[in-house]
Amino acid sequence: MARTPVWTSIADTLRAEIAARQYGPGDKLPTEAELSTRFGVNRHTVRRALADLVDKGILRTRRGAGVFVEAPPADYPIGRRVRFHQNIRASGREPAKKVLRTETRAADLAEARALEIAPGAPVVVYEGLSSSGEAPVALFTSIFPADRVPRVAEALAAGGSVTEALAANGVPDYVRRDTRISAEAASPTQALHLRVRENAPLLKTIAVNTLLDGTPIEYGITFFAGERIALTVAHDAPKESLD
Amino acid sequence: MARTPVWTSIADTLRAEIAARQYGPGDKLPTEAELSTRFGVNRHTVRRALADLVDKGILRTRRGAGVFVEAPPADYPIGRRVRFHQNIRASGREPAKKVLRTETRAADLAEARALEIAPGAPVVVYEGLSSSGEAPVALFTSIFPADRVPRVAEALAAGGSVTEALAANGVPDYVRRDTRISAEAASPTQALHLRVRENAPLLKTIAVNTLLDGTPIEYGITFFAGERIALTVAHDAPKESLD
Repeated sequence: MARTPVWTSIADTLRAEIAARQYGPGDKLPTEAELSTRFGVNRHTVRRALADLVDKGILRTRRGAGVFVEAPPADYPIGRRVRFHQNIRASGREPAKKVLRTETRAADLAEARALEIAPGAPVVVYEGLSSSGEAPVALFTSIFPADRVPRVAEALAAGGSVTEALAANGVPDYVRRDTRISAEAASPTQALHLRVRENAPLLKTIAVNTLLDGTPIEYGITFFAGERIALTVAHDAPKESLD
Repeated sequence: MARTPVWTSIADTLRAEIAARQYGPGDKLPTEAELSTRFGVNRHTVRRALADLVDKGILRTRRGAGVFVEAPPADYPIGRRVRFHQNIRASGREPAKKVLRTETRAADLAEARALEIAPGAPVVVYEGLSSSGEAPVALFTSIFPADRVPRVAEALAAGGSVTEALAANGVPDYVRRDTRISAEAASPTQALHLRVRENAPLLKTIAVNTLLDGTPIEYGITFFAGERIALTVAHDAPKESLD
């Protein structure tokens, strides 16, 4: 009888540990070097075992980040109240945001229309990367009408959430009016930030948040890594059905 | 002064006609043969002019279908009432559905859970391709609990819409409960049906439709061509805000 190759027994061991949730969905596996030491084999053998589990859809390689346990896209509810930190915590992971850029500049036509301000009026632009646990999940651009929330840039630069930054500007609450959802292929820069392959499918959302009286307060464009996030919408009964 | 190449003047002419809406967004251009005859040049020259307009993002080549005027993705509203024919007509195009397959078989676990029936209970599966004007826009699979709508298969086979087929089964009205939206890369078969390139980004929706009393009546999985359709959601005020 042919001897079972060493890599298959390593693959079987890892597979059993994943099934037992020693490594859960989305978790990072130890490095090749660490696995070599643990199993007492060379890196080539470890790589063969990992490649087998990637082929089987059990693991996924993320460029520059390592090997992770495959997980179905996490649910990200969108509705009248969408709060990033809350949504990620509900999926059992730790949310984080990294500021990539903030600037104040003149609104272009699309921004002015969405925010109901004059074209050329000042807007605060906040670009960043959102993560869930160790995985980057979304690249976002939030655009605020500077005249309505004059100190929003400082609050964001200080590392607060959008909710906190708006609260610091006298906006205790805000709601989402509408969302437009499309699918686009990741550009090289987006792929690098989101750690997906170039042309990987992304979910793009364009949303407008307003004060409770309907005044637009934020125009947001977000690109979600399609392999990590699925948007969910509950279609509530409309007002007229209450009659 | 260098003489302007013939192809640039053809490109300029087509561009002016597109700007004047002689060919509107999404319209098919005449064939290369027809354009050769019209401009009195060989096909190579026509091809050069078309390639230039494709590069500029003014035209788009669709595999096996011809050359089309580039159009931004059309809005497709999703909410409590989603009606395909209505949505496409609202965008000014003619809706069409082609039946790819209908069958009756046992429900798998996901289907049984969504439809709140026993695993293995009979379901009617309806697969098809939806088009907007000349462009295929969505590949869909609709799954119905056979016991609740026993004659739905005949009605669908007869070419009716889902709304008509349900009405023929004594379901005068139905509403959408929720939608899960993800982004996936087109498989070779999906790409062929939707006339997009392999791995092109698709929007995938999973939705449950119910009777007005909440009983699930349809479980639907749809893949939209990302370059042609964007989903829009209006986030209405919830019931409690009426207090």
